[in-house]
Amino acid sequence: MADKPSTPLLDTVNSPAELRALPREDLRQLADELRSEMIDAVSVTGGHLGAGLGVVELTVALHTVFDTPHDRIIWDVGHQAYPHKILTGRRDRMRTLRQKDGLSGFTRRAESEYDPFGAGHSSTSISAGLGMAVASDHLGTPRNVIAVIGDGAMSAGMAYEAMNNAGAMDARLIVVLNDNDMSIAPPTGALRTYLAKLVSGPVYRGTREAAKAVVQKLPPFLHEPARKTEEFARSFFTGGTLFEELGFYYVGPLDGHNLDDLLPILENVRDAGAGPILVHVVTKKGKGYAPAENSADKYHGVSKFNVITGAQAKAPSNAPSYTSVFAETLIQEARDDERIVAVTAAMPSGTGLDKFAELFPNRIYDVGIAEQHAVTFAAGMATEGMKPFCAIYSTFLQRAYDQVVHDVAIQGLPVRFAIDRAGYVGADGPTHAGNYDNAYLGAIPGIVQMAAADEAELRHMVATAAAYDAGPIAFRYPRGDGMGVDMPERGAILPIGKGRIVRQGGTIALLSYGTRLGEVLAAADRLAALGLNPTVADARFLKPLDEELIARLAATHDVVISTEEGGLGGFGSHVATFLAANGLLDGKTRFRPLMIPDRFVEHASQADMYAEAGLDRTGIVNTALTTLGYDQAAMTAALAKI
Amino acid sequence: MADKPSTPLLDTVNSPAELRALPREDLRQLADELRSEMIDAVSVTGGHLGAGLGVVELTVALHTVFDTPHDRIIWDVGHQAYPHKILTGRRDRMRTLRQKDGLSGFTRRAESEYDPFGAGHSSTSISAGLGMAVASDHLGTPRNVIAVIGDGAMSAGMAYEAMNNAGAMDARLIVVLNDNDMSIAPPTGALRTYLAKLVSGPVYRGTREAAKAVVQKLPPFLHEPARKTEEFARSFFTGGTLFEELGFYYVGPLDGHNLDDLLPILENVRDAGAGPILVHVVTKKGKGYAPAENSADKYHGVSKFNVITGAQAKAPSNAPSYTSVFAETLIQEARDDERIVAVTAAMPSGTGLDKFAELFPNRIYDVGIAEQHAVTFAAGMATEGMKPFCAIYSTFLQRAYDQVVHDVAIQGLPVRFAIDRAGYVGADGPTHAGNYDNAYLGAIPGIVQMAAADEAELRHMVATAAAYDAGPIAFRYPRGDGMGVDMPERGAILPIGKGRIVRQGGTIALLSYGTRLGEVLAAADRLAALGLNPTVADARFLKPLDEELIARLAATHDVVISTEEGGLGGFGSHVATFLAANGLLDGKTRFRPLMIPDRFVEHASQADMYAEAGLDRTGIVNTALTTLGYDQAAMTAALAKI
Repeated sequence: MADKPSTPLLDTVNSPAELRALPREDLRQLADELRSEMIDAVSVTGGHLGAGLGVVELTVALHTVFDTPHDRIIWDVGHQAYPHKILTGRRDRMRTLRQKDGLSGFTRRAESEYDPFGAGHSSTSISAGLGMAVASDHLGTPRNVIAVIGDGAMSAGMAYEAMNNAGAMDARLIVVLNDNDMSIAPPTGALRTYLAKLVSGPVYRGTREAAKAVVQKLPPFLHEPARKTEEFARSFFTGGTLFEELGFYYVGPLDGHNLDDLLPILENVRDAGAGPILVHVVTKKGKGYAPAENSADKYHGVSKFNVITGAQAKAPSNAPSYTSVFAETLIQEARDDERIVAVTAAMPSGTGLDKFAELFPNRIYDVGIAEQHAVTFAAGMATEGMKPFCAIYSTFLQRAYDQVVHDVAIQGLPVRFAIDRAGYVGADGPTHAGNYDNAYLGAIPGIVQMAAADEAELRHMVATAAAYDAGPIAFRYPRGDGMGVDMPERGAILPIGKGRIVRQGGTIALLSYGTRLGEVLAAADRLAALGLNPTVADARFLKPLDEELIARLAATHDVVISTEEGGLGGFGSHVATFLAANGLLDGKTRFRPLMIPDRFVEHASQADMYAEAGLDRTGIVNTALTTLGYDQAAMTAALAKI
Repeated sequence: MADKPSTPLLDTVNSPAELRALPREDLRQLADELRSEMIDAVSVTGGHLGAGLGVVELTVALHTVFDTPHDRIIWDVGHQAYPHKILTGRRDRMRTLRQKDGLSGFTRRAESEYDPFGAGHSSTSISAGLGMAVASDHLGTPRNVIAVIGDGAMSAGMAYEAMNNAGAMDARLIVVLNDNDMSIAPPTGALRTYLAKLVSGPVYRGTREAAKAVVQKLPPFLHEPARKTEEFARSFFTGGTLFEELGFYYVGPLDGHNLDDLLPILENVRDAGAGPILVHVVTKKGKGYAPAENSADKYHGVSKFNVITGAQAKAPSNAPSYTSVFAETLIQEARDDERIVAVTAAMPSGTGLDKFAELFPNRIYDVGIAEQHAVTFAAGMATEGMKPFCAIYSTFLQRAYDQVVHDVAIQGLPVRFAIDRAGYVGADGPTHAGNYDNAYLGAIPGIVQMAAADEAELRHMVATAAAYDAGPIAFRYPRGDGMGVDMPERGAILPIGKGRIVRQGGTIALLSYGTRLGEVLAAADRLAALGLNPTVADARFLKPLDEELIARLAATHDVVISTEEGGLGGFGSHVATFLAANGLLDGKTRFRPLMIPDRFVEHASQADMYAEAGLDRTGIVNTALTTLGYDQAAMTAALAKI
């Protein structure tokens, strides 16, 4: 950063076409400027830093060699696409990243013609790319399709399914394997070990020559690996055989920060014949920014930060995060019960289980990005009497839906699901929204489901899950900090399927499921100020539903309003179904379910999103008054008096 | 079968312990008897034939070598476990297979201590087995865990996730790869091609010796593949490297019908040290029964059949199956629109797409057992303007839930989902129940969802999906034959989100979603005979819900009853939510949702299952009368008059 060039090349490059017009010898400078620009932008907005810094040269090389947007570059996950965004006409909006109405933190089709496939979750790019490559053949429109995927994302079964399918076809698909995990995480899978071996092997050119010589000396049945003539250089025997066996032509490993290597080899790849090709590129996460290089995990996703010092701004908080309460409570329980083990799918830090891992290194399993396996692996442990806690975000548990149904619930196995990031997640936007688990888990018979109303409740629910052995049990909690309530020293075991009355009143019953309880209580205060003292109940359980409580609320109130951090088909829909099926709405009782609306909502603050959904105190009060028959004028008049 | 031995050994073997007490030279005869017994049993019940016949020797060998049930044998999918059931104390119930209250067609924990993990869906065994192996370490209870998985099941990402995780751990896990697809399906994946290469390579012993000799001559950097000393024989270079690179010790390929090979090698494997081992066994599907050997696809799952001729009994039908109507209609549409392509996840025959494949071999993609990839691959094609139809059973679409949310719906891509086997499926039981898609898809914003009321409606829905380009669209239909209605020559394009009135009446409105319409109409006839002439509506759409129609029905009837082939959180729950949220139940209208009950239901006939759920004509009439206030006596009296 210190020796910033005097002529900013980046100012002259507003599109990949302009990039391609630059002399090759200018690309190094352009890459440096691109890196500085990205650091500066993210220092203002926060966001994913390390991943983008690692692919600056790769981004420049790909847009130089390939004819984008006619050629399709698909960035797996999409969190490394900030340099790509800067180069594809979005530089002027980079400081709106992840803000309301600003750029998405991922690729997004609606945002740019240079984003052929949106992402957010990992490991989708090869499938999507193969679809595009096949379509290109059908439509007679030749084009290159390049999927750029990290080594971590390659642990997901989905990526393997796509490789296995692509390897048996002759579609023109280029997979760039961005291998950047060398220096951070301990190996979580065999593939990781394999890649490390490739990279630590003899250097590229040496291997190539050695391999050529050796092949001649082998008996005939060993010639098979040499069956393809070498159109371009690649390693042999020491590496690539796994990908070769999966039907891919393997090229690499290459230094992903060296444009002199990247450019000619990508040109060769571009000009090769039919069939899928895998280009193994080695990069360094956080490359070129010392704080990020030195602490790749802390700079994966960052808050706003000071560019000079690297210090990240942290919002002050008076309450612990739900994630940390989960982790601390699980540690408490695990001290008392050796059968408790924890499972994470490549999110030890995000789920808080890194703390658990420090204390119980032999009782945590990080299975990689592999949610399907995580759940059934836990089911296998449960059959033998272990007490596995599977900590997976709501949005990622979607990846393991069948395993929850088929391997856990049908067999009634006591797997514990800790569902973090339930409800709106804010800046990560619709791809990460945890809005659906109330419905998709709610549809499954025999699984106990809870939502924590605050951090103390979460502690109780962890304890309850630890104690419950009769079948599967899940508890959900949101992103962010707790309510600041007093914390019990230890969690209490809750009675299964029983809610609680938080505040007894009349006429209106507010039935809360989850952390909306804070807003519900605030709404109750407002309603009380209007002389309408409502009852407030915390349902605690979506399944089994506390039918006795709900029937009682319906029988003794004119209006019942449910709230939740979930959408259609979830808690409110279950309550509506129960009330209707049992004739409890046939009298004077009115039921109004408040829920996350049935549409995808772009990134914004969580508070804004709930307000827009009518799930804040104002929305709840308005629904109560409207249901009681207040018109707009009466409502405004009433509220003005408070 | 002809030379059945005079002394039936099988009669003396009632448990694996008794099997292990037999002299080794008797095992061949026992295997022959086991095969005959299995053929005879399945000829009576129908069921999965070919898979079980292929593993008779393997079953005998595994129970001989391993100390079951202390050692755990997990049969992937479980449809090949019939010989295992016979040997593990269930021989006397084999002729109740797949019948109500009889043995399950799959493994099932509740059925036997010899079934450590239940199945039905494929590719779960390695994950479950790894969980058991890890638990065995934690609990200090040494045991062997053996997962037996077919080569087809290995195309699923879940199996890869488990291999990748197991390969990086030193847990004692034995994976038996049952490679039996050599002679049937064309290769659907690169792994398949790879396995074929292994098997067609030089014979086992020759390779071993050659490899040993060759390794000595290689330059040092090529010695790596030889890093493990050879505890037991295995092939080299020509095979196994893929599994070796994934961290498994590879043994094979072995002849899976030769007990003299299987027994000593499995004993070696059993006595080997730590770390995961893959044993590659080659078997023939249908082995030992000529009709099944010669036509493996037709004898994969069979009806009752004549043992001598192999002829299968087929129930006569007056109507085409829904599956065939889907396939024929898709062919019609595809003739007119070259952009239509079809995607199946290893079910070309089950989905009816085999017919499509005959006519349009370049427009069908069988991606293997890989539902996740299937959906996102289709999404990739859709981005380029193709019109992909993804035909996946309701129960298997659970495997691709996240892909439907994240890759298709969030991006609004026009992927068409043909959801077969929706609702109860009968003999396959709870693992295959298609009961949840109304809820799990219903939770996703922006996806059009339809259910066909009969086979003519299905034809319209296929045409509607072909014409609809504004986003994702799904249509569901059940297992089995249509209603025998007149078929339109071509499908009509339905207005999106609009239901239809089938019969206009009053007081009671019966709102049907899907093929319950037949029972609903029969119920309407009965109610009409009682002087209660109900309105009957076919909702056609779950999403967008025809709110205008439903509001009108609620406004003009005292009672509204919904029916569907789905469970909690689905159509009825959506209708209840809509009615409650909009105050449409605040007056005199009573709503009763009829749905599949919220529990797992064991295998039985589809008709029995719906009757038990109250979703047949009797159940619908009873609900209508009860809701109108009839008590049991009045109801009985009224019904007696019809």
